[in-house]
Amino acid sequence: MYMGVVIGRVTATRKDDKLIGTKLLITQPIGMGESESGMPIIAVDTVGAGVGEKVLYVTGSMASRAAADKDAPIDAAIVGIIDSLDWERQGG
Amino acid sequence: MYMGVVIGRVTATRKDDKLIGTKLLITQPIGMGESESGMPIIAVDTVGAGVGEKVLYVTGSMASRAAADKDAPIDAAIVGIIDSLDWERQGG
Amino acid sequence: MYMGVVIGRVTATRKDDKLIGTKLLITQPIGMGESESGMPIIAVDTVGAGVGEKVLYVTGSMASRAAADKDAPIDAAIVGIIDSLDWERQGG
Amino acid sequence: MYMGVVIGRVTATRKDDKLIGTKLLITQPIGMGESESGMPIIAVDTVGAGVGEKVLYVTGSMASRAAADKDAPIDAAIVGIIDSLDWERQGG
Amino acid sequence: MYMGVVIGRVTATRKDDKLIGTKLLITQPIGMGESESGMPIIAVDTVGAGVGEKVLYVTGSMASRAAADKDAPIDAAIVGIIDSLDWERQGG
Repeated sequence: MYMGVVIGRVTATRKDDKLIGTKLLITQPIGMGESESGMPIIAVDTVGAGVGEKVLYVTGSMASRAAADKDAPIDAAIVGIIDSLDWERQGG
Repeated sequence: MYMGVVIGRVTATRKDDKLIGTKLLITQPIGMGESESGMPIIAVDTVGAGVGEKVLYVTGSMASRAAADKDAPIDAAIVGIIDSLDWERQGG
Repeated sequence: MYMGVVIGRVTATRKDDKLIGTKLLITQPIGMGESESGMPIIAVDTVGAGVGEKVLYVTGSMASRAAADKDAPIDAAIVGIIDSLDWERQGG
Repeated sequence: MYMGVVIGRVTATRKDDKLIGTKLLITQPIGMGESESGMPIIAVDTVGAGVGEKVLYVTGSMASRAAADKDAPIDAAIVGIIDSLDWERQGG
Repeated sequence: MYMGVVIGRVTATRKDDKLIGTKLLITQPIGMGESESGMPIIAVDTVGAGVGEKVLYVTGSMASRAAADKDAPIDAAIVGIIDSLDWERQGG
């Protein structure tokens, strides 16, 4: 899984039927010390995440396991809202 | 999933039988503020996307779920046409 | 899927039984304007591609769908020979 | 699989039901000579790893095979604690 | 698949039961002209590869197909020992 921060939302009227009703959140990957790195992805929210929240997301085929419709074409899903990150070193 | 913009189309007469009839669109990944980054990929269109449109695409084995032929060797599919991107920060 | 150009061939006598008889082509990923970027991969040819040809290849578990032996440990397969790339912008 | 070092832990009260009870460890990928490179990931511990330990982790759908709940949405799991790395060259 | 060179070996006493008995080889990805690039990975040997040998390895879920235990959490496996690389251009 990966750490990310929700930075926005995507609206797409014309989409795959199995994505209808899903909440598509623009999620920025974060690393050490919550630094931002890499391209934002679009993850299906499954735990009620909101913009600005730090989240845990899963990618690849495992993501569809967290979705309401297990057959949906989903390769990224938010599966947790981070309470705390206990880093064990400087810069964490 | 990822955000991209359709920038062209691939024609390949000699191809896997299960790809016959698919529309193969050259798709450039986009990030924050719709900046372009990384290599263009070839995604199978499943929602009627056209050149210049901003799209949502899925990669890996999940992509074949969006295809007409669920057994096709497809690892990238366009599954939505983006209406709007509601960024919640500068540069979005 | 990805665009690539075939730049060579691998010979490996000692290999997994399910790879026996496969044609293993060294394939260089190409991007905008057919610029080369990233590491070459080894893709199983399934459409009769030759050195110097521009090809379409699929990666991950979907690649084995294009192979003769659907149970083979294959994570990259050439599934099309590109006739034309219709770019809709400069530098394409 | 990949080599990593455990550098912290994530707490997430609101998460997918199938992640309840899992230990989510922040894991920094390491390379040659145990140099650190790339973004830290979040891996489910399956072998009793602790902070500071060098570990072996698996990614993608294979990770869920190591988890207690084989249906959990897990794409990274720690599957070994490294005793020794026998490099066969300088800088290893 | 990818080209690599075996540069060492990992020993991990505490590991997933399904990894017991596997040979875990530190494998450095190689590219054009056998240049080294990217992080070394840990691949399960399935063809008797040794340190210093150039190998062909598969990643992702397809890797477990080459393993003795098809249910093992394996995302990288050496599936061939390279005899020759026939490059069709300079620097190959």
